[in-house]
Amino acid sequence: MSSKVYYPYQEFKEDLKTLIQKIDQPFDAILGIARGGLSMAQMLGEYYDLREVYAINTIGYDDTQKLKSVEVFNIPDLKSAKQVLIVDDIVDSGDTLLEVLKVLNVKYPEVTFLTASLFYKKSAKITPLWYVKEPKEWIEFFWSEDLKGKS
Amino acid sequence: MSSKVYYPYQEFKEDLKTLIQKIDQPFDAILGIARGGLSMAQMLGEYYDLREVYAINTIGYDDTQKLKSVEVFNIPDLKSAKQVLIVDDIVDSGDTLLEVLKVLNVKYPEVTFLTASLFYKKSAKITPLWYVKEPKEWIEFFWSEDLKGKS
Repeated sequence: MSSKVYYPYQEFKEDLKTLIQKIDQPFDAILGIARGGLSMAQMLGEYYDLREVYAINTIGYDDTQKLKSVEVFNIPDLKSAKQVLIVDDIVDSGDTLLEVLKVLNVKYPEVTFLTASLFYKKSAKITPLWYVKEPKEWIEFFWSEDLKGKS
Repeated sequence: MSSKVYYPYQEFKEDLKTLIQKIDQPFDAILGIARGGLSMAQMLGEYYDLREVYAINTIGYDDTQKLKSVEVFNIPDLKSAKQVLIVDDIVDSGDTLLEVLKVLNVKYPEVTFLTASLFYKKSAKITPLWYVKEPKEWIEFFWSEDLKGKS
């Protein structure tokens, strides 16, 4: 995966529509893993008319090495939720999603957690319930590229 | 304000660039007010290379009437932050932003809170430190419109 491919907003939008067609279980809250899952969470929240759109934070990566442990924090209050859809842009190693699920299952054993991502690598330790694509190259998401240039 | 105007991603992107040019104080965390501020928070977090991108939830509006009280919940841990940039898509009445600031100032008296929005209505009870535009019509944001159509 030496080459890079730009992922524009238009593709994101179409991929979200594809994801919506795949999602076939109900949920009453959406939890976006920050930062990558926040735009998805917002747009899916609008589509499903859910105001219960939350975020969760993790630390585990840095730019030079991948740490083996993932810390999960800012866990939202999910006491009144029954099914929660966890969303992230990409499931790469799967470490983040696995740890998020572990922490949430301990804290909210009565909640069912569903998982969805735009991208999923087959080498990941966990497969999201729904995903759209496998990345073939390094993806430069529009949200990390589009503010760099001049207007 | 009877007419509606569609607000596409391209305009959002350009407005974020304008907002960035206005922001002239440092901050070490970004807090997006859900749902409207989440995409902004994500993209600004990428731009400023901040992983400290958090969300906060409020209830106060519903579709038929505007409640006078705003409840703020899922307050992130800001203990290690010094300056936090609070972002939202629009400051309309100002009730939400006022209540968020009130709750955060009580909980984190040592943190400085800065505020930014894309849109700001002059009739609002509070003016964000930085904003881009005044809405002249009802804005149909791309995040609430773009998933409605067929692919």
